[in-house]
Amino acid sequence: MRLRMDLAYDGAAFHGWARQPGLRTVQSELEQALATVLRVDEVAVTCAGRTDTGVHARGQVAHVDVQQTDPDRLHRRLGGLLPDDLRVRRVVAAADGFDARFSASWRRYVYRIADRPGGVDPLTRGHVLAWRKPLDLDAITVASQDLLGRHDFASFCKKRAGATTIRTLLDLDWARDEAGVVAATVRADAFCHHMVRSLVGCLVAVGDGRRRVGWAGDVLAAGRREPSVTVLPAHGLTLEEVAYPPDDELAARAEGARRQRTLDDVDEVGGR
Amino acid sequence: MRLRMDLAYDGAAFHGWARQPGLRTVQSELEQALATVLRVDEVAVTCAGRTDTGVHARGQVAHVDVQQTDPDRLHRRLGGLLPDDLRVRRVVAAADGFDARFSASWRRYVYRIADRPGGVDPLTRGHVLAWRKPLDLDAITVASQDLLGRHDFASFCKKRAGATTIRTLLDLDWARDEAGVVAATVRADAFCHHMVRSLVGCLVAVGDGRRRVGWAGDVLAAGRREPSVTVLPAHGLTLEEVAYPPDDELAARAEGARRQRTLDDVDEVGGR
Repeated sequence: MRLRMDLAYDGAAFHGWARQPGLRTVQSELEQALATVLRVDEVAVTCAGRTDTGVHARGQVAHVDVQQTDPDRLHRRLGGLLPDDLRVRRVVAAADGFDARFSASWRRYVYRIADRPGGVDPLTRGHVLAWRKPLDLDAITVASQDLLGRHDFASFCKKRAGATTIRTLLDLDWARDEAGVVAATVRADAFCHHMVRSLVGCLVAVGDGRRRVGWAGDVLAAGRREPSVTVLPAHGLTLEEVAYPPDDELAARAEGARRQRTLDDVDEVGGR
Repeated sequence: MRLRMDLAYDGAAFHGWARQPGLRTVQSELEQALATVLRVDEVAVTCAGRTDTGVHARGQVAHVDVQQTDPDRLHRRLGGLLPDDLRVRRVVAAADGFDARFSASWRRYVYRIADRPGGVDPLTRGHVLAWRKPLDLDAITVASQDLLGRHDFASFCKKRAGATTIRTLLDLDWARDEAGVVAATVRADAFCHHMVRSLVGCLVAVGDGRRRVGWAGDVLAAGRREPSVTVLPAHGLTLEEVAYPPDDELAARAEGARRQRTLDDVDEVGGR
């Protein structure tokens, strides 16, 4: 049977999602705990968005194929084994055709920035970036409009040979919470490497007045990496949500995504 | 001149507020940074609520008497010197008669608890307590009503010779945020030692069904420490706000509080 697991983690002490020899990663910790609970030698987990070193998640989704088991019991036992910085929020039997990576309709990330003179609230400093200049959200919001929709985001992506950088950006919204922290919500069908942190880095330069409003659109149109666009630090970024279509469309969606990725020779659709 | 400073800190790496030889405390860190900026040997800071080891603050207020200085410039220089887990949110010239401790009208603390099966969000685990059983907020809310108002809170306080334990509890509200985290808001004119953590510890026993609704009121009425009331861990507690009367009442309020405290022989009014 296939299980769906909803995960949350503090990325600070992980070398990202993906298993790497000798390094503490989310995938390794989770697979080791699962292997212990299931009493097997090895188990392979697939996630929706392979996060980079230091990036957090509150809404990561993963799947794993196991022998018949009680999801609630597995959940409780995992909870006891996993460290505090990695929590399994939910374990359920996955619907037919569910694939955490290929069935996903979209991923939503939030990048958080504190731009007030008092600095970052010490209680949230692990997932909020401090910014020295005040951000003009009206200007950033206008600049963000130029990036929405289906485009080649090569200007904002770490290049990978043979991989497409065409993505559909569904939302790029900016808001301030009651404490004054700026949250940039970025939603897309999928993301290429460094895309969220580059997009937000570009727009922050508009927001703090170093660049004019039209600059973000110009960078996109240029179609190549712009050296003056900063890739913001990882710790401000959190994967908040991954969405899936209704159960009866899961298999078709996965099939379509798999075909697309094969054509593109992209081995990752997870956003960073 | 007297300065008012609004402070926020992550209590995890501090041995509480009060200066102690050889230990890292909020007061020591702040006084050292102030002495450096002001180029003096020593400086003494007074706060509104002397928090215990591990207790956090987002709305701590303190005052310090200094030679004529520019508050904004001092603020910027302090920001550069202080560590990330201690932030000065605001520095202003204090109104006449202002005393961070004695002028305060009330203190508001919040105790946060995650009672969902998925455990605590890793990004907020430093200031939210994990609780294994689900809490019934309706029952807790009813039980809390018995504690409101002016009472002798000896049952919930760490005893101190000669000190009164009479306090006025203004609010004791329970709510769940959109993520399901339970927040107990506790507001009083002042608190005695361990009072918030004992009150919440008592009510949580009602909320998870181990005690009946009337138990909290019974414990209060007994007037002595009840061994089965748990003092909850420090890390769930945050000092959120300290309120002061209008400027023209600051001096009178401070005078009244000072007289009261002298009568009571209480050397602390800060809540814990």
